[in-house]
Amino acid sequence: MKVLIAGNFDVIHPGHIYFLTEASKLGEVTVVVARDETIKKFKGRAPIFNENERKLILENLKMIKKVILGDQKDFFTPVLLEKPDIIFLGPDQYSSWIEERINKSGLGTKIMRLNNRLPYSSSELKRRFLKVYPIDSTKET
Amino acid sequence: MKVLIAGNFDVIHPGHIYFLTEASKLGEVTVVVARDETIKKFKGRAPIFNENERKLILENLKMIKKVILGDQKDFFTPVLLEKPDIIFLGPDQYSSWIEERINKSGLGTKIMRLNNRLPYSSSELKRRFLKVYPIDSTKET
Repeated sequence: MKVLIAGNFDVIHPGHIYFLTEASKLGEVTVVVARDETIKKFKGRAPIFNENERKLILENLKMIKKVILGDQKDFFTPVLLEKPDIIFLGPDQYSSWIEERINKSGLGTKIMRLNNRLPYSSSELKRRFLKVYPIDSTKET
Repeated sequence: MKVLIAGNFDVIHPGHIYFLTEASKLGEVTVVVARDETIKKFKGRAPIFNENERKLILENLKMIKKVILGDQKDFFTPVLLEKPDIIFLGPDQYSSWIEERINKSGLGTKIMRLNNRLPYSSSELKRRFLKVYPIDSTKET
């Protein structure tokens, strides 16, 4: 089974490890890494690690078979290229537009979802960064 | 060949990937992860990820065979337990006390060092965090 997942994967945390492990139980995992420009557009800021750095780190994780960069123009392009059996979504990832595109494409890809909330989130990470690097630490840089 | 390396490994970055890849070219890599209390003592602050989280992430990296937590009382204990052929040090890691202890122990472990400066450092990481989470972002948490 070919499993496709997608995400920012900016600073690998235990929530990612859990999500990737669950994905790998379904089959061989291909990860689509969000482009820097896409993250800037959606978050209003650059990622901490750029797309090539995020790709490099993911390529070195045991449960991942293949890592590709996303398509800036059409998010569905990697699905058309990879033709996965399963798209595995995280608890907060939106699916209705993907379902529509799969139906149109005739690919037969199944959408599955990790329903458990991840034991870790980006906002938890941010809370920890700010605890470790408090306001006055900017003076040192 | 059994290769031992040690470090904090708090937030995996491309410098770690490079260091771990170089270590794995020498043999099977065992990583000693610094304890939270040790980091607090040396850095004056807690790590972003606790010791079990750092261990979990490392255990999922392809180039690592085994991950153990450090010893809070005597940093040399993991060397005595693991009996590595090589201890592989990063460019900033201190070695003279390790050499002394190896000589005393009669282990015959060889010390090797990555001489290239890592293409990434903790201070670079800090600079990026502060850029991404600027001062006024503390209001949101």
